[in-house]
Amino acid sequence: MENRIYNFAAGPSMLADEVLKGLHEELLNYKGSGMSVMEMSHRSKGYLEIFNDTKDTLRRVMNIPEEYEIFFMHGGATGQFAAIPMNLMKNGKADYVVTGNFAKKAAEEASKYGEVNIAYDGKDNGYAHIPEQSELKLSEDASYVHVCANNTIFGTEWKKFPETNGIPLVADMSSDILSRKINVSDFAVIYAGAQKNMGIAGLAVVIIRKDLIGEHDPKTPQILAYDVTAKNDSMLNTPSTYSIYVLGKVVKWLEDLGGIEEIERRNIAKAKLLYDYLDSQSFYKPHAEKESRSMMNVTFTTPDPEMDALFAKKATENGMSNLKGHRLVGGIRASIYNAMPIEGVEKLVEFMKEFAKENG
Amino acid sequence: MENRIYNFAAGPSMLADEVLKGLHEELLNYKGSGMSVMEMSHRSKGYLEIFNDTKDTLRRVMNIPEEYEIFFMHGGATGQFAAIPMNLMKNGKADYVVTGNFAKKAAEEASKYGEVNIAYDGKDNGYAHIPEQSELKLSEDASYVHVCANNTIFGTEWKKFPETNGIPLVADMSSDILSRKINVSDFAVIYAGAQKNMGIAGLAVVIIRKDLIGEHDPKTPQILAYDVTAKNDSMLNTPSTYSIYVLGKVVKWLEDLGGIEEIERRNIAKAKLLYDYLDSQSFYKPHAEKESRSMMNVTFTTPDPEMDALFAKKATENGMSNLKGHRLVGGIRASIYNAMPIEGVEKLVEFMKEFAKENG
Repeated sequence: MENRIYNFAAGPSMLADEVLKGLHEELLNYKGSGMSVMEMSHRSKGYLEIFNDTKDTLRRVMNIPEEYEIFFMHGGATGQFAAIPMNLMKNGKADYVVTGNFAKKAAEEASKYGEVNIAYDGKDNGYAHIPEQSELKLSEDASYVHVCANNTIFGTEWKKFPETNGIPLVADMSSDILSRKINVSDFAVIYAGAQKNMGIAGLAVVIIRKDLIGEHDPKTPQILAYDVTAKNDSMLNTPSTYSIYVLGKVVKWLEDLGGIEEIERRNIAKAKLLYDYLDSQSFYKPHAEKESRSMMNVTFTTPDPEMDALFAKKATENGMSNLKGHRLVGGIRASIYNAMPIEGVEKLVEFMKEFAKENG
Repeated sequence: MENRIYNFAAGPSMLADEVLKGLHEELLNYKGSGMSVMEMSHRSKGYLEIFNDTKDTLRRVMNIPEEYEIFFMHGGATGQFAAIPMNLMKNGKADYVVTGNFAKKAAEEASKYGEVNIAYDGKDNGYAHIPEQSELKLSEDASYVHVCANNTIFGTEWKKFPETNGIPLVADMSSDILSRKINVSDFAVIYAGAQKNMGIAGLAVVIIRKDLIGEHDPKTPQILAYDVTAKNDSMLNTPSTYSIYVLGKVVKWLEDLGGIEEIERRNIAKAKLLYDYLDSQSFYKPHAEKESRSMMNVTFTTPDPEMDALFAKKATENGMSNLKGHRLVGGIRASIYNAMPIEGVEKLVEFMKEFAKENG
């Protein structure tokens, strides 16, 4: 595609060229239906095909066992920050592992619905670290343990998820779902906002072990109630029809290129390129601890905040956008989700070298 | 546009050709940005322009006074069924006027958060009637009075909204917002799912008098809390960025063609065409009472359910889709929202005449 920019935004973020082209081709008239997918009734045969195909393809690509239900819900991951405790906090208590900003927000939201035990809090080391098992103070009577798999803002990611002794493990995978192989059976619930590796904003995907779907807090809004969602196959009300269609395109693209295995190989290669360069020099300082580094969001700083700003500005002029770090940490953040081609990362590393030479 | 079908779906539903063409043109590269709107960070300068333009245009088109805030929220109108009581039921009690299926659902959801007084229930006459003021049993101490402006399933619509003696009037306008002139100041809150007259699914628009934004039920999920939404200008989390962009295109299209005044003129003409024909014959039987008829959803039946099905089938073969009535009422429903051109209604009336001749 022409005049394309390498978009390093943390989300909403880049879509694969193939996905965008497919959307473009079908936008005015979906497969001879005489209408756009945007215009299709969610109850129509044509749309239900899209909906079910999307679900089936996601199930194949992530290897989701039959004991798990897939929900397409409203409200993004932030909606799930409430839905998780409203549906799952049966004992009135849950453990939260706070490894970053969104993990913290999830814990704060949960505290409206019951007792939240902070099993770990990384704030004293600037959230640069993912804890070892021994660092976690898990409760024996928690209804579940909540983790954030990848911390978009700080650039850290769980490599080995905690052992919870049979207590359901709930993971917010908004920023690394579909990027690497995971064993779905290790989790009770996996949820994600779609606008990073799953397409566009306005959709939350929830993968939940069926036996956990049951009663909810009586004040749970219907749109966030898991049993209601299950009973209505995510169609209690009109779902985000177009976002689901885009997700379908994304998972089909993934499947066609070789599935999670192949995208993981590519993601490892992209991240290695960037981290190897960071480790080879002293101008840029990586933020995350080496063992905790994220494959999706690479965070670092130049010698000072003004130079960080100059870096982002110059990068944009050179066809690489949205490299400014989150306002909470500053510095630079390169989000290199599935849709970022390795050429984008190569170009970024070249630019970093030149920028360091000019300003070092 | 070629091979276009007249789509009479109740929602998601037709978009104007001009809107779709605009989306198509900009899909791969928005105004030289090198990316699609779908890929834009919601905090980026480029996207914020779209977001603010959309809000400003909606304000102009609907003539929304400065004392009202506009929210772009998740969860569709069904999310608001919970949000309204969670944010506004300060006295623990509210009045609901039940004129149809969604009005009933709104009342049921509200009863989770406080006492619901059913001020009127139209079920005994098949929801074919919109009540007069004298038919309403309003409470003196209700926190608000809730109405559903247009009943999509039954094809009825409020012409003159109730007098509430200073008690805030809350209206679900999902299926007739932007279709006719209303005086926003007559309402405390207006809300709507976007997938009928406002674009595509995955977005709820809320127009609320600022003085009503305040404390909420402590169990309100953040994504549904009005004070949190106001404080964050609808960006507590990533909003439905693309749906908001589509809404922007829709309101710009409306403004360019002459605003609400002009679309109301067209809607009156379209509805008149269909109702005049219905009143001129005896083969089809209109469902709604004459004085309660909706300008957006025209409901009627043929002599029997099998013929209803045949009608819908034959109509599809003739380039008019989704005319089957809702499963709750059966029969035929022609949804003729803003984007349906008069040519579509003319074609439908011609088809109805022929079908009646053949099967009468």
